[in-house]
Amino acid sequence: MSRRSLHNPAPAAATLRARLDRARGAAADAATDALLIGPGSDLRYLLGQAGGSFERLSVLVVPARDSSGAVPTLVLPALEKPGYADVPTDELGIEVATWVDGEDPYRMVADRLGRNPGRVAVSDTMAALHVLRLRDAVAGAEQTLAGPVLRQLRMRKDAAELAALRRAAEAIDRVHARMGEWLRPGRTEAEVGADITEAIVAEGHERADFVIVGSGPNGASPHHDVSDRVIEAGDVVVVDIGGPIPEGYNSDSTRTYAVGEPAPGVADTYAVLQRAQSAAVAAVRPGATAHDVDAAARDILTDAGLGELFIHRTGHGIGLDVHEEPYIMGGNDLPLEPGMAFSVEPGVYDAGRWGARIEDIVVVTADGVEPLNTRPHELTVLPA
Amino acid sequence: MSRRSLHNPAPAAATLRARLDRARGAAADAATDALLIGPGSDLRYLLGQAGGSFERLSVLVVPARDSSGAVPTLVLPALEKPGYADVPTDELGIEVATWVDGEDPYRMVADRLGRNPGRVAVSDTMAALHVLRLRDAVAGAEQTLAGPVLRQLRMRKDAAELAALRRAAEAIDRVHARMGEWLRPGRTEAEVGADITEAIVAEGHERADFVIVGSGPNGASPHHDVSDRVIEAGDVVVVDIGGPIPEGYNSDSTRTYAVGEPAPGVADTYAVLQRAQSAAVAAVRPGATAHDVDAAARDILTDAGLGELFIHRTGHGIGLDVHEEPYIMGGNDLPLEPGMAFSVEPGVYDAGRWGARIEDIVVVTADGVEPLNTRPHELTVLPA
Repeated sequence: MSRRSLHNPAPAAATLRARLDRARGAAADAATDALLIGPGSDLRYLLGQAGGSFERLSVLVVPARDSSGAVPTLVLPALEKPGYADVPTDELGIEVATWVDGEDPYRMVADRLGRNPGRVAVSDTMAALHVLRLRDAVAGAEQTLAGPVLRQLRMRKDAAELAALRRAAEAIDRVHARMGEWLRPGRTEAEVGADITEAIVAEGHERADFVIVGSGPNGASPHHDVSDRVIEAGDVVVVDIGGPIPEGYNSDSTRTYAVGEPAPGVADTYAVLQRAQSAAVAAVRPGATAHDVDAAARDILTDAGLGELFIHRTGHGIGLDVHEEPYIMGGNDLPLEPGMAFSVEPGVYDAGRWGARIEDIVVVTADGVEPLNTRPHELTVLPA
Repeated sequence: MSRRSLHNPAPAAATLRARLDRARGAAADAATDALLIGPGSDLRYLLGQAGGSFERLSVLVVPARDSSGAVPTLVLPALEKPGYADVPTDELGIEVATWVDGEDPYRMVADRLGRNPGRVAVSDTMAALHVLRLRDAVAGAEQTLAGPVLRQLRMRKDAAELAALRRAAEAIDRVHARMGEWLRPGRTEAEVGADITEAIVAEGHERADFVIVGSGPNGASPHHDVSDRVIEAGDVVVVDIGGPIPEGYNSDSTRTYAVGEPAPGVADTYAVLQRAQSAAVAAVRPGATAHDVDAAARDILTDAGLGELFIHRTGHGIGLDVHEEPYIMGGNDLPLEPGMAFSVEPGVYDAGRWGARIEDIVVVTADGVEPLNTRPHELTVLPA
């Protein structure tokens, strides 16, 4: 058996070659001898192929630029090699080294690192199983994370990546536009969620990655999923949905609905939330910090006495991962740059009663911001 | 947004309490001060809930038995806490400690470990992001893997786990029984795979986790997925499929089909493979080693001159993970014990031409073996 690895549109070889070269340069800048990249989004970014398998080591060894003569090497279990058939390894100058059950792939990696590497970075998603065995095989080297190196590349999306994020956003907007077909009293969250899941695929995603339908009190749990709760007239319902399109780039958008007229007080609180979300979007521009964007939303909610109800950061970067850098939170002094893409999603959560959230993906442009999700931000009241 | 966490049948609190207690004992036996268990199958085994989220740390701190007064603690992002509502933390004697964006959860974990722990084990699936931050927060302690500690528990399935594995096997057998509905010339592997995926769910799985339809030359790639190749009359087709049932336990079974009469020579080679698979199953009993089972299959293939075509180990344990201990491979001297469950799946792979594999899940009984998959082992010839 194998984890399913879908064969999807990959960037051109020239794009991948430029990324690999930049990664080698970024490693050198970080005084890191090599990056060890396992299956996942980092690998997909560099090779156009995310890879798979768990307990058998697959890893791309990326030597820092100017590592005397060292060549990037893809170390693979022999039986996984066919899954990488579409990777243009020759054009990328990547050697492929395979191993079979019973051989020691960690030793193979160590042998590729040259003598006495000082610092070796592993991809953030690499499992401890491999992290600790690589630590032992490359004894003496400091082990660090590759995320801080690669995020310099992955945070700044190129034109093709931004186009893919736009397509993903348009696809999820089409699903939100159809919410009235499914969301009504007497149905369970799970039933509504099943319809949404189907629509996410029908509207152009590869799959639904998450479907939150938080009705009534469940809306007060930001990471709710779906439940067997029956939706009632008057419920406020948080719908937070998304997934990857075939190119691998993700959608993620939240809108809040009312099924019939909501309770008194909801409208006023919601209006503050809407103002906070707009202000955070408006704060996005090159040179502003992630902290600034978070503060723009948080200050408005706090001033209205709702600060205690906003229990999470304002957003997260998005791309090949649904959650990636930059994280839009207090204390993050990262200056925003054109090409960065992230969510702006303040929420209010009144435990045991109700919740609301508004989430758009936005892109930093040369002089401001481009919101990718364009559905109305008002509390949409559906027929009860 | 959140990764989807389904709410599924969990073991009784008494079962979980016994597991947690055994885990604490096993940690003490391994001279390990604490186990740090992140989201995944290990957590599901101990809490009945696999958890979720990536970049925000969620971890169950399991102090070794006799760690003076230390209490198991579940460290969670506050917004993930509702997802653990079904975990009987009080009955399990587990404290819950939540943190919010901006706080340092690694420090919280370190504070729970007491003064100067000597050795701390992390779950095998924990991401490097957390592994290295925990390493830094618990400076001075040796960091090891929790897998070797927990596998002592997880490898030996109890009656309820075996019953779940039987249900999973019966469900996947029902899918294989229907293969003639889908597998015929003129259809692509992907089309057949889509039908199988639907049937896997219809027959009682929570989802399809992998669907390999390897026709003709694609059958020679053990970890093939599906492709747009059109199935032709005379093709030999490897179908390797499975997924979890709602209790979390997995199916995984391979059968090989011929669509019309296969080429001359296929039948003879297949007959040897079938003999090898039967011999490996027959070698399963308490006291035999994983190595012995692998050798039983490999020797027969080697004696027939087919050893070079069998390019992977004979099998892998199965339970809450599709791949887990024990691994059935040469050099693994682990003695088999009643309650261990694993695949027996030799294959032959003639690169560029065709392949075949036969895979059953089997359980070690008090005096022998119980195969859970019961579909015929012969090469099933479907109408062309």
